[in-house]
Amino acid sequence: MYECLLHHETFSRLEARLKPFSDRISPVTVSDSGEIGRPWGEAACDALIAHGNADVWFSGAARAFGKYLYAADRLDFFQSSAAGLENPFLQKIGEKAQAYASSHVQSDAIADWVLWAGYDWFGNGAARRAAQAAKEWRNVHFREIQSTHWLIYGFGHIGEAVGRRLKGLGAHVTGVRRSDQVSPFADRIVHPNDVSADEIGQADAVLLCCPHTEETENLADADFFAAMKEGSLFSNVGRGALVDEAALLKALDAGRPAHATIDVTREEPLPADHPLWTHPGVTLTAHTSALTSESRKRNDELFLENLSAFLNGEPLRNLVDAKAFADQSV
Amino acid sequence: MYECLLHHETFSRLEARLKPFSDRISPVTVSDSGEIGRPWGEAACDALIAHGNADVWFSGAARAFGKYLYAADRLDFFQSSAAGLENPFLQKIGEKAQAYASSHVQSDAIADWVLWAGYDWFGNGAARRAAQAAKEWRNVHFREIQSTHWLIYGFGHIGEAVGRRLKGLGAHVTGVRRSDQVSPFADRIVHPNDVSADEIGQADAVLLCCPHTEETENLADADFFAAMKEGSLFSNVGRGALVDEAALLKALDAGRPAHATIDVTREEPLPADHPLWTHPGVTLTAHTSALTSESRKRNDELFLENLSAFLNGEPLRNLVDAKAFADQSV
Repeated sequence: MYECLLHHETFSRLEARLKPFSDRISPVTVSDSGEIGRPWGEAACDALIAHGNADVWFSGAARAFGKYLYAADRLDFFQSSAAGLENPFLQKIGEKAQAYASSHVQSDAIADWVLWAGYDWFGNGAARRAAQAAKEWRNVHFREIQSTHWLIYGFGHIGEAVGRRLKGLGAHVTGVRRSDQVSPFADRIVHPNDVSADEIGQADAVLLCCPHTEETENLADADFFAAMKEGSLFSNVGRGALVDEAALLKALDAGRPAHATIDVTREEPLPADHPLWTHPGVTLTAHTSALTSESRKRNDELFLENLSAFLNGEPLRNLVDAKAFADQSV
Repeated sequence: MYECLLHHETFSRLEARLKPFSDRISPVTVSDSGEIGRPWGEAACDALIAHGNADVWFSGAARAFGKYLYAADRLDFFQSSAAGLENPFLQKIGEKAQAYASSHVQSDAIADWVLWAGYDWFGNGAARRAAQAAKEWRNVHFREIQSTHWLIYGFGHIGEAVGRRLKGLGAHVTGVRRSDQVSPFADRIVHPNDVSADEIGQADAVLLCCPHTEETENLADADFFAAMKEGSLFSNVGRGALVDEAALLKALDAGRPAHATIDVTREEPLPADHPLWTHPGVTLTAHTSALTSESRKRNDELFLENLSAFLNGEPLRNLVDAKAFADQSV
């Protein structure tokens, strides 16, 4: 019998669909206030399954959830709702878990966040809102997405989800990745080592959605920004550590890039006195680019599918190689 | 020899490409301050061609341009950069012109304006900006475009340009038009007479991009809004007269629709004391949804193409039937 640790709202949504497994799992729920519940009663369990999704990580439940996991003797299967593994918290879980499955279902949500950022920048949303606030019937010129060139660092699940949308809208997409496999969602694929200053300078928008590794730490530094086109947009949905934030603030003052729309920062939550909050060239969201109800539903489905597979000894979707947690440079 | 009346900036952009016609046209330019210029010198002309584009209508030149046209004995060919004909100003020009050509090249720009409106509403842009303004690292949930249903009134050039984008993004599109011809850019086509309250209630976003006629006057009234879904978006890029604005403001207070993003109003420019400016549920732009540099370039090309065709006695693109101006119900 497995304890099955999950957020109490996740449990409420899925209770009917967990019932078929009631002879093999005993739900343990965590509430936003950190309360532990056993909605189906106590059961003698000698093993543990856990589901760490947005309900857990984006709420007050995170602490109690982690504490429960760390205190447990073992962790047989962990279903994450995140793609990234380099977070120290997930590293610790990954080291403990016998089986760890990641998730890429947030890609569609994150891609929509990127399109929102692009539409608001090229659509000159700020000028439109300013004109309305001033009650001025004023011409606001803007730019069509189909005329824009995008350089997308990291052309995996997220990069391709963004590229698919942009290509559909008629934009030009260059994807940066190690694999030289062509993609239907990019006009060109370029190896990270082959990205020249010229390549960066041709982009109207540069998006970072690559993982944080030793190689990508401070990828966007002063030189990188100096190569960017005047009037261009910089966007980051990867990790804060990809960016030299001091260099970014200086670069914005110099107009290259003209604007930064970012969902991740080096320190999260970002301290209230950090200049990124108030710089007029920065649009900032709180690492919430995946926070859609659709994304939650897809993660629910993935969890149920993998739970069933795990209990029946079948192969898991997105099973992560244990080496990923032994070796930090994933 | 034809006088060729156009904005002085349009002339500057196109001078080199107008040169081949210099034996048949004599440019007459209008500046933003209303000054008339003859950059190639005076010439004995007995006929008139004019190009009324965004440079003219969205600047101080409009008045002098109109005055020049009205005072002229004749108007042989008028190239408009607008699709609509029902504007009284254009009606007057249309009645005078021997040949009048319209333009649909703004559709791509307007479609991007609509996508901007959609992304900012479903992406919860206002809440994101409010969180940043408060320096609060806060969860902002949002909705993916691919999960949204759109009802598009008027499924011609603009409607199809919007539908093409939305379909590419995975949204569900219902187009409303008289012609029952299927479209690759809509899941369904519905006749205006067959739009039920239920149909309206299923849409997460309703867009008006139909012309203003007797039938469409006040199309969006109290009953229409009452049928809309809670939390939905209403958008108008057609004409202000399609909407009962008092009913819209009441409807917003009642939450159906939850938001209105509109580019057109009954009175334009909208008076500074009009409640649409400040209602928290309204995003308003100044009839500028077509104002892109790409749109200007496409109109330049159309003008040059039609100018050449006109001078060579060839068929014009987008030639408007003279009856359109005799009969107002176009």
